[in-house]
Amino acid sequence: MTERFSVLYLIFAANRAEAEARAEGIAREQTVEVPRDVVPAGYIEDVILGQVAAVTEDGEGTFRAEITYSPDSVGTDLPQLINVIFGNSSIQKGLKVIDFKASPALRTLFPGARFGIDGIRRLSGRETGGFVCPVIKPQGSTAERLAEISYMAARAGADIIKEDHGLSNQPAAPFRERVSIMAREVARANAERAEAGDTACALYFANLCGPGLAIRDYAMHAKEAEAHGVLVMPGLFGFDAINQLAADDDFGLPIMAHPSHLGPYVLSPDTGYSHGVMFGALMRLAGADISVFPNVGGRFGFTEAECLDITDQCRAADGYGRPILPSPGGGMTMERMPDMMRMYGPDCVYLLGGGLLRYGDRIGEAIGDMRRALDTDMPGSAARA
Amino acid sequence: MTERFSVLYLIFAANRAEAEARAEGIAREQTVEVPRDVVPAGYIEDVILGQVAAVTEDGEGTFRAEITYSPDSVGTDLPQLINVIFGNSSIQKGLKVIDFKASPALRTLFPGARFGIDGIRRLSGRETGGFVCPVIKPQGSTAERLAEISYMAARAGADIIKEDHGLSNQPAAPFRERVSIMAREVARANAERAEAGDTACALYFANLCGPGLAIRDYAMHAKEAEAHGVLVMPGLFGFDAINQLAADDDFGLPIMAHPSHLGPYVLSPDTGYSHGVMFGALMRLAGADISVFPNVGGRFGFTEAECLDITDQCRAADGYGRPILPSPGGGMTMERMPDMMRMYGPDCVYLLGGGLLRYGDRIGEAIGDMRRALDTDMPGSAARA
Repeated sequence: MTERFSVLYLIFAANRAEAEARAEGIAREQTVEVPRDVVPAGYIEDVILGQVAAVTEDGEGTFRAEITYSPDSVGTDLPQLINVIFGNSSIQKGLKVIDFKASPALRTLFPGARFGIDGIRRLSGRETGGFVCPVIKPQGSTAERLAEISYMAARAGADIIKEDHGLSNQPAAPFRERVSIMAREVARANAERAEAGDTACALYFANLCGPGLAIRDYAMHAKEAEAHGVLVMPGLFGFDAINQLAADDDFGLPIMAHPSHLGPYVLSPDTGYSHGVMFGALMRLAGADISVFPNVGGRFGFTEAECLDITDQCRAADGYGRPILPSPGGGMTMERMPDMMRMYGPDCVYLLGGGLLRYGDRIGEAIGDMRRALDTDMPGSAARA
Repeated sequence: MTERFSVLYLIFAANRAEAEARAEGIAREQTVEVPRDVVPAGYIEDVILGQVAAVTEDGEGTFRAEITYSPDSVGTDLPQLINVIFGNSSIQKGLKVIDFKASPALRTLFPGARFGIDGIRRLSGRETGGFVCPVIKPQGSTAERLAEISYMAARAGADIIKEDHGLSNQPAAPFRERVSIMAREVARANAERAEAGDTACALYFANLCGPGLAIRDYAMHAKEAEAHGVLVMPGLFGFDAINQLAADDDFGLPIMAHPSHLGPYVLSPDTGYSHGVMFGALMRLAGADISVFPNVGGRFGFTEAECLDITDQCRAADGYGRPILPSPGGGMTMERMPDMMRMYGPDCVYLLGGGLLRYGDRIGEAIGDMRRALDTDMPGSAARA
């Protein structure tokens, strides 16, 4: 019999009996979606119907329910896996997904990250230390201006040049034109760095935009333009956009996931997913190599515990597929760097957002300062004070 | 100058000054995403940057902020429009989208529903009265068994045969095989109904599943198999899947939107979208002809006011594109029909879920009872008691 996978739900209920009844309801809701008395006997009842493996008390008014599902309930596709994990039950109040355990069948179907932490280090030549990642913006700028900023940042030692997730097909810099110019200018910076003896280079991640069904065309255009990776927003394009690109040998570039439009899945204590599952486990399942999320203390209000949950689930050795890079962003300043480095360590992509623009054409200095900070102040570094 | 579109946000703030500051922050977050002092002067500051049109007190600790955006900020694609409406700001606590006013430029880009209420009545021949819509399940059944249930329901007078959203590419009934058999059996029932003088027919809606990027291939297969429409889950495949199919003349079939995985966008009072925006306005913007949502009193806990908000926004004459059909589902029984008919009226698709299976091979009787109830008890009907 095929091994089942399991989902751990946090259920808000007045007592154990209610929690157990709700768990049985979820097991049906996510599979057969019919009342218990009309579930057909045999294969559907024995295999397809979700099975409540355990209900344990978690705290005052909360219970943990582990429910197992058959890979037969999923079939072949990631959207249906997410449908089984949380589709209709996402509309129930007082219910949150807090863990997910894959089965061998799922690991075969969905390969996870193609590169992961080790792969990104190999591609970038950044063998140790944190990654410096300026975000290129604002929207409304010409492609030439965005490329100019990218060149300066790349030339100064940035590891990843990430387009802002809001750069789309705006008239000022439509995708195809922009990506070609951006890639060319990052390549120019990399050539100069190589000539100067730098063994690391800047990886340019183009923001995939456009119509949802054309996202692979956009990804292939980015590759042909010699971008080194892509940014994907699963909250707008679906998690399967990441999964399909990650599994696509013809594409074969790394993927950075952006949290746009995913907020409601984590903001409420009693609905959605835990922070670690959404921005860690699910991103690994989908196949992202880097997971962007809002940093503690920024304008989004994630707590330190929530950020560390994300970081842990991105990097845990026993998680889904390869360990991936967490990428906290939002309101990062040079002053906050020492605290952030202590919190996140070296296997992390440090985003530098809109504040960078204050440096004007001296943006390279900010990148250089950050590079030095990461190399000298990082815990475990010999140079650390 | 191109007319701007606007979004109305509900902001949770201690006082007006805080609400105004947050509104300015959202206007930046959703567009330039840089601090105010580095927004480049000229086009970016004057056009691209979001503009706070008004902040008004809504109640104790809540404020309404209307923010306008340029169509230039959107460019050409629906994912970016949603990104501007609520992308990053979806990750802010205490912020909810409660209305959206399109501009002429957006209405040109995104056509909305191809059929709407009038179109679905024309296709089905159901000129007046509510639509009877059995949901075909459970998952794990063979295609033959699902088609047999569909035949019985269609033959007995169902208006829409809707596949359960959980029918995917499971080994028991993979999509391509299932859709062909289902369409054939619904066609057989329709031929018999026509022969018996019925001027209405059953429309078969196939559930689009499979890989996210293949959804158009699946839609075209459904069309070639002579399905009459498709079910799409924007919470898994993205809202643009609906938009692109709705605008696709080669496809050209009606679209029913399913709320799977969208729960967290409406369940919390202080994040996400209002019920009416999510299941009414956004579905119309995307181009759905029918919007499925959880009925009041069912297992999902939507209130009557929330359901009526959805219904109003689906059918309002001055909404986006054509008025569309609301489709409440979840826990519907014959006993609840009179209340539901009073609440929802005739321009409504009445879903009949898992409880139908209790009728076994007499499922046609349940469909017939429901048809008669809708025709005789509907408010405004001459036969109403």
